[in-house]
Formats: sequence, C-alpha cells, structure tokens
Amino acid sequence: MERLKGVLSYDGTNFFGSQIQPGQRTVNGEIERALQKMHKGKPIRIHASGRTDAGVHAIKQTIHFDTPLLIQEENWKKALNTLLPKDIYFHTVEKVSADFHARYDAIEKEYRYYIWNDQERDVFKRNYQYHYPYPLDIERMKKGCSYLEGEHDFTSFSSKKATAKGSKVRKLTKVACQQEGPQIEFIFCGNGFLYHMVRIMVGTLLDIGQRKLELEQITYLLEKKDREASGKTAPPEGLYLWDVRYKES
Amino acid sequence: MERLKGVLSYDGTNFFGSQIQPGQRTVNGEIERALQKMHKGKPIRIHASGRTDAGVHAIKQTIHFDTPLLIQEENWKKALNTLLPKDIYFHTVEKVSADFHARYDAIEKEYRYYIWNDQERDVFKRNYQYHYPYPLDIERMKKGCSYLEGEHDFTSFSSKKATAKGSKVRKLTKVACQQEGPQIEFIFCGNGFLYHMVRIMVGTLLDIGQRKLELEQITYLLEKKDREASGKTAPPEGLYLWDVRYKES
Repeated sequence: MERLKGVLSYDGTNFFGSQIQPGQRTVNGEIERALQKMHKGKPIRIHASGRTDAGVHAIKQTIHFDTPLLIQEENWKKALNTLLPKDIYFHTVEKVSADFHARYDAIEKEYRYYIWNDQERDVFKRNYQYHYPYPLDIERMKKGCSYLEGEHDFTSFSSKKATAKGSKVRKLTKVACQQEGPQIEFIFCGNGFLYHMVRIMVGTLLDIGQRKLELEQITYLLEKKDREASGKTAPPEGLYLWDVRYKES
Repeated sequence: MERLKGVLSYDGTNFFGSQIQPGQRTVNGEIERALQKMHKGKPIRIHASGRTDAGVHAIKQTIHFDTPLLIQEENWKKALNTLLPKDIYFHTVEKVSADFHARYDAIEKEYRYYIWNDQERDVFKRNYQYHYPYPLDIERMKKGCSYLEGEHDFTSFSSKKATAKGSKVRKLTKVACQQEGPQIEFIFCGNGFLYHMVRIMVGTLLDIGQRKLELEQITYLLEKKDREASGKTAPPEGLYLWDVRYKES
C-alpha cells in the first residue's frame, strides 16, 4: 500500500458540494469514481482537508488516499485527470509517508471571497463572484477585518447547523480586504474554520461596509457567542478554498 | 408601435445557440419569452445582428423589436433583466427610429477569440477559452493575421454547412493577435462574417503558430476557395461576439 497526496482545483458551480451524498454529483464522488475505475472496480476512499458546500470553488484543495497500485508517481496525475470531468483538475499527485493525513495535518487554510460591487451584473461572473450592487465603504471594511484577526471564539460566526462539537476557538492569522475596480477581494488565513464561518464573516463585513453595523459591534458579536447577532451568510459562489498548508515533512 | 434597440451580453455555455429552435434553450427564445410575459401573452419577435452558435458568448450583441407598450425608456432595461435568466443581461434598451434594423444596419462587427495556451488546464476557463496545450509561435501568428486583413473571398474560411447564398467576399479591417502570459487573444473586425469564419481562421492561424502551415499558404487558401484546404474549426467556447457597430443616426 502507498499513500498519495493530491492537490486539485474545482469549479464548484455544478457540484452539490464536495462530500459524497447519495444521488448527487459531488467532487469527492467524482474522484472516487475515477479511482475505482483505475482500481478495476475496487472502491478507494479519499480524505480531503475539509468539505466545501455546493457552489463553493477550490483553487488548491488537498486530499489523500491509499492504493495498492504500482503506478509511477508521475503517471498518477495524468491518469486521474484523463478520467475526471472537466470541472476538476489535479495539479500534483505525489507519494507521501503512510502517516500523512490531509485533514489532521493541515496547519493553515486560506480562503478568499470575491464580490462584484457594481450596479451592472456581469453574466460571466455570476457563478464566480457575489454580485453586490450597493455602495460599500472599503476603508471601514478593512478596519472591520482587523477586528476579526487573532484568536477568538467564533460561535457567532458559525452556522447553527454545524454538527461538530468542541471548542469554537480559532486563530485567524490574516483577515484582509482590497478593492480593484468593481472587484473586492477578502482574504482569510487561519488554523481552522467553522461551518459557514467565512461566509458569515463576509456577510458581517458587508454590513460594516454599508454602515449598518458599528465597528465596535464586531467585538460585541465575538463576545456574545450567538449566531443570531451577526450578519447574513454570504452566498457560496464568491467563496474559494484558496490553499491548505502543511508542515514541511 | 415603437421600435426598441437592446444591447446585451450572454454567457453561451448553457445555450443551444442564439437562434430559436424548438425544444432547445436558446438566447433569443429566452428573450422572446420575457417579452411575451411583458406583453401579457402576445408573442413579440426580436431581430438580432446575427446568430451565434452553441457555446459562443456575446459581450455586446444587438437586437431590435417593436412594441405597442407605453413603458418609459429607462424602465425597459430593468423590466427585461428582472424577467431574464442570469446568463443574459441587457446593458441598454433605447428607442430608435422605426427603420432601424439590428442586422441590416450593422456596418462593422468585432469578434474576439481566447486561447489558454498552457500545459495545465484551468477549470475556471473551460467554458470561456480554448485550452490549447501545444507550443505556438506568436510572431508567426501575428504575421498570419496580416495575410487575412483586407478584402478577400473567404469561401475557404466558411463552413460548407452555410446556407447563405451570394458573395463570400468580406472586408476585414483588423485581424490581430496578442499574448499575455498563457492567454492569447485574437481580434477580428470586419464588415461581415461567414458561418464559422472566425473559428476556421483561428484554426488556420493555430496551424501557422504550430509551423504546420507556411505563411504564404494563407494567400493560396484564399485563392483556392475550398473549405477542405484550410484549418480545423476552433471550438466555440473561445469565441465572443465583442461588438456590433452602427452608423451614427
């Protein structure tokens, strides 16, 4: 048996999320189907760094799986990409030690969120950026980002549908926001993210940008530990799992 | 009755082309359906500057139609965009004189074609650029463009499926090619384009870029007036109807 680590992109538009769900087209389902073909019908289970929801994209998702096949490392990428649909693409597939785990060994994740802040819709961005036509105060949102940086209990920024138990304390090492023409980019780096956490932070930062919420209220929200108090969950199409970082082995 | 001119974008990915075809989702079909709703069930026929094939996009397609409705000019755009699906968007809708015709009055059209010239696929470009992973000589393609400029009989660059009769002489005022990183952009401006003409010119220029065809052979192809002699038809996803120009009225 060998363990392989794969780094892949996917366009989340036509997936019902990443996790396998019966009767739905999912990213992991497509990858396991391709692997099953390569393994002559034997099911192969993959493990991803984490899940993404329907409509959410990935630039560098990371997975691992174990295989009995004796295929040269450099041929794995080509074999998988040939079998996969056009909205999934493996950038690298490489051998790793048997104790590598895509989820448990991740030390940092980066998400980005894109907003198309223009009165006019752009048909080519409809699945790739959140169209938000209202005026936004960018400087205020930048300040808002700094209130979210650091170690906090993010209960107020976590979906009540989250099933995970345990601490909701996470450390965000970078929260930033920048504008380039009508495009606004949010960057979030941290040691872990709760369910819907990025999308609720974006929804709250948009309230800040719209002056519906005072900057100091972010501190209050973090202390309150109540999802009801924070902003709306921004829609999935603007969200990208940008990178997953691991310790150098 | 009033005549209205509309300028619209569409993402051609999920359309079976622009022209109405029974049982298929088409751009014109969606627009006429929206207009029919506005006209309480009365069918309204639209006229476009020309057709686009399945998978081909438009940045500025132009249409016209006649209406008995007394709606203020500035409300037309909003009404139509509200009724249309997210992959069609009207930028402007304005009153024009009763003799304006979107097709017959067009004096120049511009098409652009995008190629993603990289070994690696980009999942986010799969419907918007032609992925061409082979090496290309850009300087050679630029020279190839200049052979196509001017007035020629473009029979060799027209699909044999074309039903239009009459002269195949067209005048191209600009044919250009430029590279920006792995992206190659072709620009074609002219007084008219035959069926598949841009895609066959791109296929032929790619042969030039791959050194499969000598530059001088473009002149020979134009003289030969035989579709068999020219390059493959490049796929639709890279093609954009970029603009349609009219005389100042």
